Amino acid sequence: MVTDLNSFTEQFQLSDQAININDIPWIPQSDRVWFKPLRFDLTTGSWINLLKVKPGGAVNRHRHTGGKVMAYTLQGQWRYLEREWVATAGSYVFEPPGDIHTLLVDGDEEMITLFILEGSIQYLDDNDQVIKQDDVFSKMKLYYDYCEQNNIPIKELRF
Amino acid sequence: MVTDLNSFTEQFQLSDQAININDIPWIPQSDRVWFKPLRFDLTTGSWINLLKVKPGGAVNRHRHTGGKVMAYTLQGQWRYLEREWVATAGSYVFEPPGDIHTLLVDGDEEMITLFILEGSIQYLDDNDQVIKQDDVFSKMKLYYDYCEQNNIPIKELRF
Amino acid sequence: MVTDLNSFTEQFQLSDQAININDIPWIPQSDRVWFKPLRFDLTTGSWINLLKVKPGGAVNRHRHTGGKVMAYTLQGQWRYLEREWVATAGSYVFEPPGDIHTLLVDGDEEMITLFILEGSIQYLDDNDQVIKQDDVFSKMKLYYDYCEQNNIPIKELRF
Amino acid sequence: MVTDLNSFTEQFQLSDQAININDIPWIPQSDRVWFKPLRFDLTTGSWINLLKVKPGGAVNRHRHTGGKVMAYTLQGQWRYLEREWVATAGSYVFEPPGDIHTLLVDGDEEMITLFILEGSIQYLDDNDQVIKQDDVFSKMKLYYDYCEQNNIPIKELRF
Repeated sequence: MVTDLNSFTEQFQLSDQAININDIPWIPQSDRVWFKPLRFDLTTGSWINLLKVKPGGAVNRHRHTGGKVMAYTLQGQWRYLEREWVATAGSYVFEPPGDIHTLLVDGDEEMITLFILEGSIQYLDDNDQVIKQDDVFSKMKLYYDYCEQNNIPIKELRF
Repeated sequence: MVTDLNSFTEQFQLSDQAININDIPWIPQSDRVWFKPLRFDLTTGSWINLLKVKPGGAVNRHRHTGGKVMAYTLQGQWRYLEREWVATAGSYVFEPPGDIHTLLVDGDEEMITLFILEGSIQYLDDNDQVIKQDDVFSKMKLYYDYCEQNNIPIKELRF
Repeated sequence: MVTDLNSFTEQFQLSDQAININDIPWIPQSDRVWFKPLRFDLTTGSWINLLKVKPGGAVNRHRHTGGKVMAYTLQGQWRYLEREWVATAGSYVFEPPGDIHTLLVDGDEEMITLFILEGSIQYLDDNDQVIKQDDVFSKMKLYYDYCEQNNIPIKELRF
Repeated sequence: MVTDLNSFTEQFQLSDQAININDIPWIPQSDRVWFKPLRFDLTTGSWINLLKVKPGGAVNRHRHTGGKVMAYTLQGQWRYLEREWVATAGSYVFEPPGDIHTLLVDGDEEMITLFILEGSIQYLDDNDQVIKQDDVFSKMKLYYDYCEQNNIPIKELRF
């Protein structure tokens, strides 16, 4: 017996989404670093992506401004230059707003990690000056530009 | 050169957290279903856990009330009885508030999926009456009870 | 000089919204209690409303399951039967997930408070059994039903 | 009858908070502009504050990067140079991530508005270069510095 409220909810609730990473290309981000987007949330500014880094690759020193980050490592291993721990497959990492760190992949294996990000990523020089900034829009633009340049259909990841 | 604001931020920012799933036990949830918690956020009521379901297992029909759910499939395959899609390794699923569904694992392989949950899970009978409810506290209690009963140290997952 | 990223952002960013409470009716909620919705966020299940309670009115004992609540008092005064503090104009209140309380307006003045809510509101009987539940959809339905019954145009508050 | 889960929840739930704006000073922000903080959420980077602007005052052109903003006007009126609407007492405004605007108070009356902010505020010059940035930490530092300089006890607003 569906009550009236249940019918109302069913009528107005948003659609679910099921996306497979095989349907999304790896977007080059920097030397030996790629990302694959899964969701762009334009209401809150958060986004979700896989990050792939080949051995010897790095994500330069950056600060997470105005939002937290969560990471779940799928394969390989990585660490932050400024921390003691090493993330391996099955590691869950929480990074608070304001955190500054440098991502390194020292091992022999390609690293792939699921990242859930909020706020912005501010890349810093040695004097802590911001030299580059990423947010939900810059990552989305990288995805759109790459798809257009390579004749890949753009998946709707805004939800 | 660290500016004063940078020192202030470093002084007050929360600690990062790095947890490996190997340090947390599988908690029995129902027949052929287990979960492994990664984070209990008592400020917002959200929580993160791995879910493991053996072939033939199911999570009974339930509604996500008052929050969204996101899932990333790590291994195996699963589906919702009420939907057309099948999630396999690398599938990312978004479930909106209000969504009602029944999780099934039909395949031969054990399924493991990372879930990020908000709100509450309300298990429904055939008349859509709530017969059981889970939220961040009920999952946390299952974890604490299991650890105490099995002399396993409780990891601090409240952050 | 608008850079390409700025143009991209401007193209894709969501619209801002500006709503005045004078354009939204007071919806009867219970004896001496009304609400006026400002936002229904169907992506997260949160919603925002003004609450108006006439002297002697109450919101029966309830639990906030699966989400936090924040309140800013605009006029009048109120308290929770289970707490020591009294909220007056300019009081900001934070209620954590799981909190149980009974809202009372003892004074002579009508109380109006801005509430930002997540999760669900579960009204409890003396044995802590749930006898009624509100969430973003039930409040939205009350608004839609009231507008239809009174020939008031429904404002689009889903954003 | 309190069930075991209810006792567990009561034991672990966070404390509620009730703060009155009369207990917090107005912090000078710029010429004819003050703010009064109500909450610093260091887990997500969001913060809540009242903003007071005297007639003729302005908040220079800025972008909200990596987060949404919500505003509820308590008194007076204000607008964004780049928009058509005017906010008056009782106006609720939603500003999406990426939004760029210049806040103006043209009227005769002091404006006071409750703002709930996420991400960061990036003040832009005429070439869209970032010349100053605010986030939860910079606003918290302004509050702490002002209290220390004026021998005002710092209220704990981190929750």
